[in-house]
Amino acid sequence: MLINRLGEFALIERIRKSIKTDASVVVGSGDDCAVLKFNQSHYQLFSCDMLVEGVDFTKVTDPYLVGRKALAVSLSDIAACAGIPTHAVVSLGIPKNTLVKKIDRITKGITDLAKEYAVNIVGGDISRSKELIIDVSILGTVEKKFLIARSGAKKGDIILVSGELGGSIKGKHLWFKPRLEEARFLVQNFQVNSMIDISDGLTQDLNHILKASNRGAVIYESLIPISKDARGLEDALSAGEDFELLFTMPRLEAKKLLDAGYAGFMAIGEIFDRKIGFRLIKNSGKVINIKPKGFRHF
Amino acid sequence: MLINRLGEFALIERIRKSIKTDASVVVGSGDDCAVLKFNQSHYQLFSCDMLVEGVDFTKVTDPYLVGRKALAVSLSDIAACAGIPTHAVVSLGIPKNTLVKKIDRITKGITDLAKEYAVNIVGGDISRSKELIIDVSILGTVEKKFLIARSGAKKGDIILVSGELGGSIKGKHLWFKPRLEEARFLVQNFQVNSMIDISDGLTQDLNHILKASNRGAVIYESLIPISKDARGLEDALSAGEDFELLFTMPRLEAKKLLDAGYAGFMAIGEIFDRKIGFRLIKNSGKVINIKPKGFRHF
Repeated sequence: MLINRLGEFALIERIRKSIKTDASVVVGSGDDCAVLKFNQSHYQLFSCDMLVEGVDFTKVTDPYLVGRKALAVSLSDIAACAGIPTHAVVSLGIPKNTLVKKIDRITKGITDLAKEYAVNIVGGDISRSKELIIDVSILGTVEKKFLIARSGAKKGDIILVSGELGGSIKGKHLWFKPRLEEARFLVQNFQVNSMIDISDGLTQDLNHILKASNRGAVIYESLIPISKDARGLEDALSAGEDFELLFTMPRLEAKKLLDAGYAGFMAIGEIFDRKIGFRLIKNSGKVINIKPKGFRHF
Repeated sequence: MLINRLGEFALIERIRKSIKTDASVVVGSGDDCAVLKFNQSHYQLFSCDMLVEGVDFTKVTDPYLVGRKALAVSLSDIAACAGIPTHAVVSLGIPKNTLVKKIDRITKGITDLAKEYAVNIVGGDISRSKELIIDVSILGTVEKKFLIARSGAKKGDIILVSGELGGSIKGKHLWFKPRLEEARFLVQNFQVNSMIDISDGLTQDLNHILKASNRGAVIYESLIPISKDARGLEDALSAGEDFELLFTMPRLEAKKLLDAGYAGFMAIGEIFDRKIGFRLIKNSGKVINIKPKGFRHF
């Protein structure tokens, strides 16, 4: 069987099933970051993301933004776990006749963002490849008491996002601000039960939370914050690479957060029992059973 | 300017110069692993290696061995720092029409070796790419007292290797045993002043030690252990991917090690002042100034 017939998520599940880990691993493969025992008060976070030319950026994308994005998607994974990024290593696959200037710009894109978030770039590897490849592996830390996984959504939780969705292809996927500060603000001041970053698309990533938490959900068309860059609702639901936080918290906590009027945070729905499935209430009142859709490599 | 004109090492130097790190970084980019502050007794090691189809393996290489190699080269980096590997993440770039069976075999190659060395595979990323790419990032720990860098070679040190060199292209580059146990044995029982793993080739990797330590060296043709798979001395000096340990230790320590008769360890030369340069004494008595040679991507 070819992998495009199996599909990306089935392939990942297949690989995950073959992996065993020991007691040093608090959360293994499957969340935004692996969570490892570290010290009395903190866990260590560990994650990797591979960007490929022609998939995550094009031949003509400003190489500065390519480098920036390579680190930013990793920072977004740390944000999804409410952590603080600390160290990263970068592997570069570079086509033979690449200009040194281009590598300089990629490097600058990485190091500028690293500086902004006090991340140490501590190593790397360079290889020859047919297309430009950047793989960033990142370490971070998070206080044990602040760790949030995908699996903690509770019945009655309100579902929120940290910003507008859809149309990131017009540029946001390159220059988005990883929601590190927002995630820290949330866990330091509120009870958050589950969190993820929207990389694959709202419905697909919310579905990751629902599956991990064994819950159902209802979201409302009228509440989805559709970006002006989006072509419409469909785009906001499934175009992906928004890199906003998607999280759930008890109703009273959500009220506290929204009443305080912090810009950006918006409620879009509610967590229910698993049996309700995953529903979208249209503005017309029509109820739609959502089949999660979003970006898949295969 | 194109990168193949600048060359791989100049490119790496160029990138390294643009990077600043904070006090949490004991040794940054440039050694086999980054060395990070961890706890009172231990440092944490962090490293990444990217393998690319057509460079590090071919389209017809047994995928099991491709997976195995991807993790093994990272384990070899941990060995070079005398550490114990703990956790790894794996990024896969996979061409569209790849058989699921092939990914299963790659996964098995990785997980079997991970099991052998008690390494936890804790995460990964999958992307679509034109050629098969595997990037492994690895974490390890090492007792502070056992940390060895490339930069510690002393005048008068004996230069040793942990096994035969050359001809790894015939198969050893795929199924080599990362020298983790040997490295631990060395640091637990002897004073080792500098260490590296031979990935680029003996002369190139010894030159890394000499530059980092600001020393010179003399090696002897008669002492170089040439593998039966090698085409000759030239191959043993520069073919690369032997993944043996290359290390230096005081003369008396070397005597102790060699007298004890541990299989595999062999002296090949001596460390001198920088001004002597890097020399090879041929069997004929002829003295040759070595221009380090080995594998380069560009």
